[in-house]
Amino acid sequence: MILTVTPNTALDITYRVQSLRPHASHRVTEVTERPGGKGLNVARVLAALGHEVTVTGFAGGATGHIVQQRLTAEPGVTDALVPIAGASRRTIAVVDERTGDTTQLNEPGPAIAPAEWSAFQEAYEDLVADASAVALCGSLPPGVPVNAYAGLVRTARAAGVPVLLDTSGEPLRRGVAARPDIIKPNADELAELTGSHEPLRATQDARRRGAHAVVASLGTEGLLAVTPEGRWRAAPPARVHGNPTGAGDSAVAGLLSGLVDHLPWPDRLARAVALSAATVLAPVAGEFDRGAYEELLGQVAVTTAATAA
Amino acid sequence: MILTVTPNTALDITYRVQSLRPHASHRVTEVTERPGGKGLNVARVLAALGHEVTVTGFAGGATGHIVQQRLTAEPGVTDALVPIAGASRRTIAVVDERTGDTTQLNEPGPAIAPAEWSAFQEAYEDLVADASAVALCGSLPPGVPVNAYAGLVRTARAAGVPVLLDTSGEPLRRGVAARPDIIKPNADELAELTGSHEPLRATQDARRRGAHAVVASLGTEGLLAVTPEGRWRAAPPARVHGNPTGAGDSAVAGLLSGLVDHLPWPDRLARAVALSAATVLAPVAGEFDRGAYEELLGQVAVTTAATAA
Repeated sequence: MILTVTPNTALDITYRVQSLRPHASHRVTEVTERPGGKGLNVARVLAALGHEVTVTGFAGGATGHIVQQRLTAEPGVTDALVPIAGASRRTIAVVDERTGDTTQLNEPGPAIAPAEWSAFQEAYEDLVADASAVALCGSLPPGVPVNAYAGLVRTARAAGVPVLLDTSGEPLRRGVAARPDIIKPNADELAELTGSHEPLRATQDARRRGAHAVVASLGTEGLLAVTPEGRWRAAPPARVHGNPTGAGDSAVAGLLSGLVDHLPWPDRLARAVALSAATVLAPVAGEFDRGAYEELLGQVAVTTAATAA
Repeated sequence: MILTVTPNTALDITYRVQSLRPHASHRVTEVTERPGGKGLNVARVLAALGHEVTVTGFAGGATGHIVQQRLTAEPGVTDALVPIAGASRRTIAVVDERTGDTTQLNEPGPAIAPAEWSAFQEAYEDLVADASAVALCGSLPPGVPVNAYAGLVRTARAAGVPVLLDTSGEPLRRGVAARPDIIKPNADELAELTGSHEPLRATQDARRRGAHAVVASLGTEGLLAVTPEGRWRAAPPARVHGNPTGAGDSAVAGLLSGLVDHLPWPDRLARAVALSAATVLAPVAGEFDRGAYEELLGQVAVTTAATAA
């Protein structure tokens, strides 16, 4: 199985309102809820591709209970979230029906106690032993040490299990130094890590900091990969329009899926780009359009990238 | 015991954010949650005054479960909410720390099935038999007939139990015709019911439509009461500044408390105005400041009101 780790699990709630006006009272016309946090989104896409996936991280309180109930109902996904005393966070996306724009309200998430973090590390070590690949995803909740991902990367590498890290800021900086197999920063995360806004230069620099392979997601331009086997750019056949929510998580799922299927890098990148574009095109945020995915898969252009000076 | 009915029970969630900007992403700095819906607020104030209170209405899903857990923890409040298949609604108040303003997002609430409405009516009839007074509070969720309050008023009156109705729009119009003992509209609700924006004229008109007593809440001006025993205005000693959330519910609690304590009307009105002002002054929305209440109680000016021409 593939293991995804989401320390800051969430219940993602979407509200539709006619028009969002600060200081006014709004009747919500539609409410949807689903388990969220980057690793859970990655797991959902992997399961849809036919992989067995186990999700871990933390869950607590009434919100954690809903997250676990929903996860258990998804075929192919095994819930191994570690219980905590605090309540899991909610995120609320308020969609303005008039403009289509989204306003996001993110709860901070519960503080993780030292004993809970220890219990998680033990559970993680057991889970890694059975995993074909590991993805470490998203932000760290309060109470989890900032070098947490570095430790989790080392545990996976010691077990000989390939590990992908998808986070930002200081947790990314510390995690990279532990030499993960793949990191997948977006342009902003890459610039924050390296200080360079030039994608190829920054991607190469991120590799020098410790990552074996760096796959940078450059929005509508697709992916830029710098790996031990070579450098590639992978782009969708045409600019896709839609909701980019979850597109990065779908790219992570594509990379992991290709990795455990032992595909060469160009095919892994094609899978990641096609899934990412099919997620932007899907009517529901974070889902992917299977028909579009299958059609796009043969149309992704993967080209060799030059070396930055 | 006093029975309060809240058909549209809610979990009231308050988010504090630095500054609410549409289309931006916000980190919520503080999350608070409490059981909500007008009848639950009334019950909380009655319990704080030392009355035994039973709350009924509907509760369902994970949100309903949290509401019931919290209610059970409040001393003096007995939970008699009727279970439903749907999930109870949430309301989200987003407080802008920069301006102090609040943006409100209200979920529509679950649809009540015909069998659930029947089960509620049976439970209500049993509860009314043991009640010293009944308060029917707030909006009706989808699936509950618009003349629901009229039926609940008649059940209480048939059992000889005094009944207060605090709602708006068509449910108020239908409910008034069933001759409740007291209605407590605010100025807008009164104008919608009677077509008149002149408070004394509108209050008298509302009585003619069936209510035995009408207590109109006129914001900072206090209360105007037209009753079989006389007409009064009751006003706080000075204009109070603060958060008016829940002030109307505290006034309802004051009226019911005075009724079951067999106080004359002027003393009931003084209690209602003092509680209402002490709620505006409290730092937490919907709570009341007990010290302010006790101090204000002797300072409320109750004067006889003239008859409108």
